[in-house]
Amino acid sequence: MIKLGFLSAILEDLTFEEVILFAAETGYSCVEIMCWPIGKAERRYAGVTHIDVTRLTAGRIREIRNLLDQKHVGISALGYYPNPLEADRKNAARYIAHIKKVIDAAKKLGLENVNTFVGRDHQVNVEENFKRFRKVWPGIVKHAEKRHVKIGIENCPMFFTGDEWPGGKNLASSPAIWRRMFNEIPSEHFGLNYDPSHLVWQFMDYIKPIHEFKDRIFHVHIKDAKVLRDELNDVGILATPLSFHRPKLPGLGDVDWGKFFSALTDIGYKGAACVEVEDRSYEGSLKTRKQSLIQSREYLRQFLA
Amino acid sequence: MIKLGFLSAILEDLTFEEVILFAAETGYSCVEIMCWPIGKAERRYAGVTHIDVTRLTAGRIREIRNLLDQKHVGISALGYYPNPLEADRKNAARYIAHIKKVIDAAKKLGLENVNTFVGRDHQVNVEENFKRFRKVWPGIVKHAEKRHVKIGIENCPMFFTGDEWPGGKNLASSPAIWRRMFNEIPSEHFGLNYDPSHLVWQFMDYIKPIHEFKDRIFHVHIKDAKVLRDELNDVGILATPLSFHRPKLPGLGDVDWGKFFSALTDIGYKGAACVEVEDRSYEGSLKTRKQSLIQSREYLRQFLA
Amino acid sequence: MIKLGFLSAILEDLTFEEVILFAAETGYSCVEIMCWPIGKAERRYAGVTHIDVTRLTAGRIREIRNLLDQKHVGISALGYYPNPLEADRKNAARYIAHIKKVIDAAKKLGLENVNTFVGRDHQVNVEENFKRFRKVWPGIVKHAEKRHVKIGIENCPMFFTGDEWPGGKNLASSPAIWRRMFNEIPSEHFGLNYDPSHLVWQFMDYIKPIHEFKDRIFHVHIKDAKVLRDELNDVGILATPLSFHRPKLPGLGDVDWGKFFSALTDIGYKGAACVEVEDRSYEGSLKTRKQSLIQSREYLRQFLA
Amino acid sequence: MIKLGFLSAILEDLTFEEVILFAAETGYSCVEIMCWPIGKAERRYAGVTHIDVTRLTAGRIREIRNLLDQKHVGISALGYYPNPLEADRKNAARYIAHIKKVIDAAKKLGLENVNTFVGRDHQVNVEENFKRFRKVWPGIVKHAEKRHVKIGIENCPMFFTGDEWPGGKNLASSPAIWRRMFNEIPSEHFGLNYDPSHLVWQFMDYIKPIHEFKDRIFHVHIKDAKVLRDELNDVGILATPLSFHRPKLPGLGDVDWGKFFSALTDIGYKGAACVEVEDRSYEGSLKTRKQSLIQSREYLRQFLA
Amino acid sequence: MIKLGFLSAILEDLTFEEVILFAAETGYSCVEIMCWPIGKAERRYAGVTHIDVTRLTAGRIREIRNLLDQKHVGISALGYYPNPLEADRKNAARYIAHIKKVIDAAKKLGLENVNTFVGRDHQVNVEENFKRFRKVWPGIVKHAEKRHVKIGIENCPMFFTGDEWPGGKNLASSPAIWRRMFNEIPSEHFGLNYDPSHLVWQFMDYIKPIHEFKDRIFHVHIKDAKVLRDELNDVGILATPLSFHRPKLPGLGDVDWGKFFSALTDIGYKGAACVEVEDRSYEGSLKTRKQSLIQSREYLRQFLA
Amino acid sequence: MIKLGFLSAILEDLTFEEVILFAAETGYSCVEIMCWPIGKAERRYAGVTHIDVTRLTAGRIREIRNLLDQKHVGISALGYYPNPLEADRKNAARYIAHIKKVIDAAKKLGLENVNTFVGRDHQVNVEENFKRFRKVWPGIVKHAEKRHVKIGIENCPMFFTGDEWPGGKNLASSPAIWRRMFNEIPSEHFGLNYDPSHLVWQFMDYIKPIHEFKDRIFHVHIKDAKVLRDELNDVGILATPLSFHRPKLPGLGDVDWGKFFSALTDIGYKGAACVEVEDRSYEGSLKTRKQSLIQSREYLRQFLA
Repeated sequence: MIKLGFLSAILEDLTFEEVILFAAETGYSCVEIMCWPIGKAERRYAGVTHIDVTRLTAGRIREIRNLLDQKHVGISALGYYPNPLEADRKNAARYIAHIKKVIDAAKKLGLENVNTFVGRDHQVNVEENFKRFRKVWPGIVKHAEKRHVKIGIENCPMFFTGDEWPGGKNLASSPAIWRRMFNEIPSEHFGLNYDPSHLVWQFMDYIKPIHEFKDRIFHVHIKDAKVLRDELNDVGILATPLSFHRPKLPGLGDVDWGKFFSALTDIGYKGAACVEVEDRSYEGSLKTRKQSLIQSREYLRQFLA
Repeated sequence: MIKLGFLSAILEDLTFEEVILFAAETGYSCVEIMCWPIGKAERRYAGVTHIDVTRLTAGRIREIRNLLDQKHVGISALGYYPNPLEADRKNAARYIAHIKKVIDAAKKLGLENVNTFVGRDHQVNVEENFKRFRKVWPGIVKHAEKRHVKIGIENCPMFFTGDEWPGGKNLASSPAIWRRMFNEIPSEHFGLNYDPSHLVWQFMDYIKPIHEFKDRIFHVHIKDAKVLRDELNDVGILATPLSFHRPKLPGLGDVDWGKFFSALTDIGYKGAACVEVEDRSYEGSLKTRKQSLIQSREYLRQFLA
Repeated sequence: MIKLGFLSAILEDLTFEEVILFAAETGYSCVEIMCWPIGKAERRYAGVTHIDVTRLTAGRIREIRNLLDQKHVGISALGYYPNPLEADRKNAARYIAHIKKVIDAAKKLGLENVNTFVGRDHQVNVEENFKRFRKVWPGIVKHAEKRHVKIGIENCPMFFTGDEWPGGKNLASSPAIWRRMFNEIPSEHFGLNYDPSHLVWQFMDYIKPIHEFKDRIFHVHIKDAKVLRDELNDVGILATPLSFHRPKLPGLGDVDWGKFFSALTDIGYKGAACVEVEDRSYEGSLKTRKQSLIQSREYLRQFLA
Repeated sequence: MIKLGFLSAILEDLTFEEVILFAAETGYSCVEIMCWPIGKAERRYAGVTHIDVTRLTAGRIREIRNLLDQKHVGISALGYYPNPLEADRKNAARYIAHIKKVIDAAKKLGLENVNTFVGRDHQVNVEENFKRFRKVWPGIVKHAEKRHVKIGIENCPMFFTGDEWPGGKNLASSPAIWRRMFNEIPSEHFGLNYDPSHLVWQFMDYIKPIHEFKDRIFHVHIKDAKVLRDELNDVGILATPLSFHRPKLPGLGDVDWGKFFSALTDIGYKGAACVEVEDRSYEGSLKTRKQSLIQSREYLRQFLA
Repeated sequence: MIKLGFLSAILEDLTFEEVILFAAETGYSCVEIMCWPIGKAERRYAGVTHIDVTRLTAGRIREIRNLLDQKHVGISALGYYPNPLEADRKNAARYIAHIKKVIDAAKKLGLENVNTFVGRDHQVNVEENFKRFRKVWPGIVKHAEKRHVKIGIENCPMFFTGDEWPGGKNLASSPAIWRRMFNEIPSEHFGLNYDPSHLVWQFMDYIKPIHEFKDRIFHVHIKDAKVLRDELNDVGILATPLSFHRPKLPGLGDVDWGKFFSALTDIGYKGAACVEVEDRSYEGSLKTRKQSLIQSREYLRQFLA
Repeated sequence: MIKLGFLSAILEDLTFEEVILFAAETGYSCVEIMCWPIGKAERRYAGVTHIDVTRLTAGRIREIRNLLDQKHVGISALGYYPNPLEADRKNAARYIAHIKKVIDAAKKLGLENVNTFVGRDHQVNVEENFKRFRKVWPGIVKHAEKRHVKIGIENCPMFFTGDEWPGGKNLASSPAIWRRMFNEIPSEHFGLNYDPSHLVWQFMDYIKPIHEFKDRIFHVHIKDAKVLRDELNDVGILATPLSFHRPKLPGLGDVDWGKFFSALTDIGYKGAACVEVEDRSYEGSLKTRKQSLIQSREYLRQFLA
């Protein structure tokens, strides 16, 4: 059965222990735990550290495992979403090194999944980025393979406003590119962290790829999005994406979740599906953010009881 | 967060105390309490008195407040829905006087919302009715302003069968008219009690007005409605409205509630959303009417947990 | 085969002879000839007299017939569209008398069709109007029966702006009413002059009635109409009809003419289908009005070659 | 109110007692109990015996009744779905005899409903099958009438793969045929066990028949189905049905359940609605089959609380 | 450019010479000429002999060629549509022999296209029919190859009423089967005579196969069809096809001809597109049948000028 | 009435005289004449010179006018579509100088319309481009104003493949930008050459802007386009535009031309509507290019007779 979880990023003001307790109380069976390096967030929803992978002592590991066992909550994946293909090579090297540490941490914790981005130099084209990709990614994937960890690349284009214009900061935005990525690196440890919401505003079918990439879907994000028709009619798709769409909680956007979970059950998906809250209507306070997870749980109960 | 409630009218055979207990038991956080004058109902769903505003002693007020505190249930609004623009001036004067008493009662109870109709002389046109409106309504609104009470006009055309033909008994049926009403009386205490079901059978977009009138939505009614296609094809829109549509419980009609609550969260609506049961399939007995509220609660949980 | 024609009203500045010549030149095979009494028009598109039925001498009849034979153009029907159920009984009597004269004229000219309205007192309801209907119409239909003339009632609600509010000036607006009319007067000489455009803005199926009333469709009007979505969303269906829809030339509105003519061929309809131009974009001058008929001819050629 | 249940067939590895306990624990208020003769299953989902109608002693009846009373779970119907019109007359006779035993058992248990198929010789046409029907079914219906038991014929065409090609093994697949069946045998004890999913892949309206056959709907099955567009575009409707559609849990297919239950409430249906699980994605183990019933319960709560 | 033509079958009462003259006069640039053996028609639209291939003397060939040259009308193909896989082997052998004669005739006339059916024993399944196919068809195709003639198999399922139940009399009804046919016999002289109308009532995409089978489309039939929704809702797709759909002239059915010709131009199709009239509304007389071709010409002018 | 024309670019191998003769013969009433400087084409469809504005002697002007008068064909506009905001300032200066010469030529020829692009440095964002726009365009518009010539900016984003990535070579791609352009330069001589096809693949409403910009639509291009759904689902809208859409002749794409011309008649548009052929299926030879204009003429006859 599919396991319902959420991303810990939305509860950044809680400790790891408090996050797990909240999951247990509200009926979630797993959590994707954010593992950014300690430091300042580079952008919204980033920079959250619920497990500090640089200080994962045997004692800490035991504490974590005990809590999870006791509360019957799992860790669906460790998550860290930087831009390992950033133009600034020094930064990129730092990100890559930390991704490897997150992979190491997953192994130590007995986990199988790490989620991240492939990244992109947003100012150069796909071709140029694939040149970088071919240099950067085989090493990371090999690192993961050796540790039996699966890397799930989220399919978010990381293109929101003028800051990421024109290419977005994550290459892995479409089936055509995924196909190429997996041809370049045909490892069974390299796959997708599949989120249908990013396909909605690209006007793409978000059901068909579930079938084509069924062996590559390692993890699922549950975010909804709605296209703003009036705004779109005004600015068109050449405008920056947030000017014509808005992320929403599941059930409040354009994704047909019945069809989505129907397809996941068709392919026999048994992994985690984690709610990712990026709906500004629910971000006013810790209380409303918690509420957004409770409501999402209620909404999803009809498909994932 | 939006607060889920219901209208007390459907539980007319219960006392105020029983209504509040029922809300508490079934997980509703507020109730819109009917405050008709004691007497015979003039039409279906009217004439219910759960609080008698003419006998609101300090003692009664204390009782009411204690019960609400104790049960963690609020009063979303006091409701009274007469026709203050009725052709018969004597009746109209009586209604207006009672509206003012309901406003006074709200203030005494520490409440901010009173819901009602602007009314309409259904036999004369919009222009003529606005002449009456300009005489009648500034006084009522002023009365409310002084008491810091907000008047929410429900957008029901009050046009069902031949009795209200041709104009219906409530002018406030469309955005074009709301716009004019609020231009005439630009008070911040004069707004809408927004119910999408009335727009469904008028073949109107019920999402866009949420954005245009976001500062005027003081209260929300949750009623669904379905257009009866075969009947409509037979009689057309010039027939009386109930001959081509039917009110239903939320989820059993044509309203897309996901889109509806998505829009309410977009505008940051934090008020009450109260289920209004007018589905004859559930009106057989007190038991089925209670059941209809329980089922509505279950349906709405996915959007309003 | 269905015969393509137009209504002569749009060419009011031409004589009968000029109208027939225009039809012959532009490839129309028939014309519905307007037969209002000589005098001032009471409303837009009314008051046109291409044949003066009060002066139809044997000589004039011979002239008319010769011209038609020579030009291979037929008269699909004589048309006169007053309100025989108008509240003012004197006016109504005048209209009824003239309808009978038009019927007489049809017989004299060897024609089978006269088109008109049943009329309506727009200020009283359907029930009251049927009382008048039962007094007025049996006599007219009997008059037609004796002369082997078929009366085609156009299904236009005659409701456009506030002037016809609330009921419109022609009762025969929906299948439910047609059914009742034909039950009251079950004569084979009493039927419909069917125009799909009036059903479009009433949000009704305009294909199904073609099957149900196949034996009652004596004549067809080809007018298109489009619902103005934005305006409708603003004012709703309770507003006057022209505030949310606009009559257009065939092909420029919401009627699916392929489906329409497909249904007419299914029932084996062999009568006339006459273009009725009421599209203000083409009413600037005689030249543009002629142009609108030429363009409609081009549009319809694909379905009625 | 409509009573929510499930078909016991999916829990074939449990005893009757365990099935009832499971229903009680998971919030179902009734169960349709499978009553196949003891022996090997002839096809998927068949051959389950939760009550052995050939051994229904007074003691066993008492046990069953006590358990139901104690657990507040009802038996919505006894179910047995063979092919009583099978070409092999010996087999058919055996099926018919057992249907009568199931009817007897229903009476003994104080139940009113037995569900089954009319059957069909899949290799001959509708006309030929009606000849058999007229010989076979009047006797069965009379048997039921005498015992005040209602026979609900499920509307499944029993056509899945090449084995049932070309006609399927159950005649009762469409309104046209139901109408004829009920004309042939106009007994009030002969009706439908209505399942919308079978109409979905036949591209039929599954709402309208609810109104036409409102007095014949004795029982309801809740199964969903989705049309596989790509597969359909490849093979067309002349291919065997499972090659272009797939049965799914409620909410994961193409049925609009809001509209479905809305119609059931419109006709005042008060009987049982039982979930029938035939979704292969949930058939891996007893645990997942149980889970599928729990999830369906959560999904249906919004319409049947 | 695509060449517009029609099938001569609809003008069965005319001679070959009259057919070609009619084409020339009405603006068609080619005709598919029916070549049934002289004798009685076996079914509607069959049995027409505009060229008798058994008597094709050098003199007759010269006459035919001269007429075509003189009138600037081509022969798009010779057509003969029997059932070469009929269960009765003697009949089948007769059909196959005549198909070969038609191929010979094409060569003699300097033509490249012959159109026919693969046939089907309608009482056995697809698998059994493919066994026959493998015996019968390689020989025919080889015969054609040697003469440089292309065989276009029409994709009509030949399933209309109970007579062809259950399988229809032409196997070649879907892309899945075409794919298999062309795998079995991968000759460049074996392809399709593509008619979108047969895919409409099979609820299939009629655009996509144009791309997949672009090298196999040797000829195109232009027939329209409409699904009869009410009838379909009554009988479902398991009923015989003519009970829920009706063939119509182009523009009077459900085919989107703009999209259809758009796809044909995309693949660079340069062959013939021939109107096939099977619309009973136009079959009353030779005059109406001629009229149906004139109207179709007018309709198609917008896409094939 | 709207005047039907075409762009001369598609007939590049003809002389001006031959183009006008072709228009006259095929029933077009005007032509947009290409006026590129003599030289090599920079891209597909560019570089055509049917009038050399640098050599427009009084004699040549007289010749041109005589031919137009004699053939009853008008020039709808002079067209020249370079990139006046190109990064290379020298090139840009050259383009601007030539635009001014085209404006001068229009005046000399007694014409009112010149069509062009505003251009864009495709490698910098909208903001940066507007800085350039503010320097470059006021001068050009002033030049046109003085000569009473109207500049119609085509709304083509000039973004097809990787060459124009990421921004496209013409800023004027959306209503939001048009609004801003016209605010910056509020001259009545600065407007649009409106082409709906460019809005289709940007997923924008192409009807609404007709109303908002009704005073700015100086000229209209008639090109169709279709979105390639499968390709889009594969690559998404972030890919280069030609990878998911294809330009087509009118009637062979996704534009609803009935609605389009309906809106143009609503606003009372009286200018030219010129067919722009960029459908590769028709570009094989001069003959097929001519044919594409003849077919477009036939298609448009139904809306523009």
